[in-house]
Amino acid sequence: MRGWNRLIIGVLTGVLMILASCEKQQTTRTVREEPIQPIPLTVAFDPEKVELGKMLFFDPRLSKSGVISCNSCHNLATGGVDGLPRSIGHQWRFGGINAPTVLNSRYNIAQFWDGRAKDLKEQAGGPIENPVEMAFSHNLAVKVVQSIPGYVDRFKRVYGSEQIDIDMITDAIAAFEETLITPNSRFDQWLRGDDQALTPEEKEGYRLFKEKGCISCHNGVGVGGNMFQKFGVVKPYEKDLTTLGRYEVTKNEADKYVFKVPILRNVERTAPYFHDGSTYSLSEAVNMMAEYQLGLQLTREETRKIVAFLKTLTGEQPEIVYPILPPSTDETPKPNPVD
Amino acid sequence: MRGWNRLIIGVLTGVLMILASCEKQQTTRTVREEPIQPIPLTVAFDPEKVELGKMLFFDPRLSKSGVISCNSCHNLATGGVDGLPRSIGHQWRFGGINAPTVLNSRYNIAQFWDGRAKDLKEQAGGPIENPVEMAFSHNLAVKVVQSIPGYVDRFKRVYGSEQIDIDMITDAIAAFEETLITPNSRFDQWLRGDDQALTPEEKEGYRLFKEKGCISCHNGVGVGGNMFQKFGVVKPYEKDLTTLGRYEVTKNEADKYVFKVPILRNVERTAPYFHDGSTYSLSEAVNMMAEYQLGLQLTREETRKIVAFLKTLTGEQPEIVYPILPPSTDETPKPNPVD
Repeated sequence: MRGWNRLIIGVLTGVLMILASCEKQQTTRTVREEPIQPIPLTVAFDPEKVELGKMLFFDPRLSKSGVISCNSCHNLATGGVDGLPRSIGHQWRFGGINAPTVLNSRYNIAQFWDGRAKDLKEQAGGPIENPVEMAFSHNLAVKVVQSIPGYVDRFKRVYGSEQIDIDMITDAIAAFEETLITPNSRFDQWLRGDDQALTPEEKEGYRLFKEKGCISCHNGVGVGGNMFQKFGVVKPYEKDLTTLGRYEVTKNEADKYVFKVPILRNVERTAPYFHDGSTYSLSEAVNMMAEYQLGLQLTREETRKIVAFLKTLTGEQPEIVYPILPPSTDETPKPNPVD
Repeated sequence: MRGWNRLIIGVLTGVLMILASCEKQQTTRTVREEPIQPIPLTVAFDPEKVELGKMLFFDPRLSKSGVISCNSCHNLATGGVDGLPRSIGHQWRFGGINAPTVLNSRYNIAQFWDGRAKDLKEQAGGPIENPVEMAFSHNLAVKVVQSIPGYVDRFKRVYGSEQIDIDMITDAIAAFEETLITPNSRFDQWLRGDDQALTPEEKEGYRLFKEKGCISCHNGVGVGGNMFQKFGVVKPYEKDLTTLGRYEVTKNEADKYVFKVPILRNVERTAPYFHDGSTYSLSEAVNMMAEYQLGLQLTREETRKIVAFLKTLTGEQPEIVYPILPPSTDETPKPNPVD
């Protein structure tokens, strides 16, 4: 009897494994050939480095005042943004441009609206020493981290050195940010073959999104983020003439008012919209894009359908356990919110 | 054979259950009779209400600017405090007093340094409408929450009503805060009978803490938090004569410069110290207490031992999954960081 039992259990296990692998293929395989591709369900990462990066991402001690962290403007509770047209930094100064979402930022061709940082690591160093953001210096940020034994231990484990530098700090933050993908949106489920994942109105919205030409810039895995484009292709955008965008990087006249096309993943969570955060309304944002970029006037119904489609791009954020940061010591430079 | 197998498994399971229950008794029972009692290992709570309260605790949309949440000043990553002498609020205004930790705040006799709120629920309403903190109004906070379907659903489940009011908001926040206990510190392990949990120096520090008289105010579960006391019992504290403390509540002359005795749990994580945050150094704080409250001058060694004991009061924080907040809608009042 025991021999038979084992055999039956063995056969059943085999069948289950085959079924599970079919199931997995179904959920990971892209069935539809579309100009938008689904976000991978998982990404490979180094758990220790990512945990360290998460701690730094949430650590307000990387700012001069001791109260501003990466998460202050790229709040993972609210779509990876702060919900303001322009961010509030040190001593309530306003930043020059709307904070883009950190979610799926790994799919950006470059970082910042003008693409001046080639990757997330290079980006992470910017806000720390920007006087209207965290207003610190790389030197002091390193001093803070170096003064905290709980950090020194972790850096040693991850980078093999007790001597911390700003490169390690930004590398760890970037490694954490690389994990912030939002797979399995209803749209991605549809891309992978689940026809029931979208309503007829949402499918119609996607059809319009392609037909009207939105797709020409908003495509790929990020539904944006993979090219630069002028704001005001067919009609000059006169609301903001002082932010020159890509021109600041290239000094090429043709790059004036050219910005990185923003990622539309989770767009219902990332208001207000555009580099100047000029509208909180997703419908208005869609209409403005039609007008300034495509020279089109959408009907109310078309706008509604496109917005319905855009809301299917909201995916699943990774679960983040809020870090317990290692305590400061007598050697830790004190926060300075006053100067 | 199958009958015997079942019997053996049954007996073994019984033995395991008895062993597990002994183990549990060992870790929950207080062995030592001391003026400090251990924090219970668990507290009962309503999971749905606490989850809602957690979302509100982290939601910056409860502030006028849209960027200040309860967690801004009571940061659960940094000991439930902001690490500043006085907190930064709306438009970078400074609060009048040091932000006390939210950790173990359920063990406070009353809330705020002057005890003007009888419980956490009453406390939670204060900062929302304090012009130097979140600078909002209860009315607008309710409007924000009411405009977000993801919140309305949850309030309905927890409070049985679609009509949200400020009482429900503060009740949910308080319910979350009630769960923020930090059990199982090394000191509590020692209280429960584990003699190895403390080093000889730490035990000696605790002995001094009692002998010198610190224990007369810092006792109970919170090692403080259960009485009011004058700052400057034996020597007037002249560094801050404008903060009148308990007097503001009672208008009783004898209550001038009387404050709630702060909880010392996790004190190594809650610098700077005192109602005015006048020192970041735990050693200096201990020496000041000896001088102003007890009329004593500690030797360097005594201070070091007491500080060593105090660091054994750091417990285990509950694991907090960072909330994904439901998105705002076109009806949500817009943040106003400018006025």
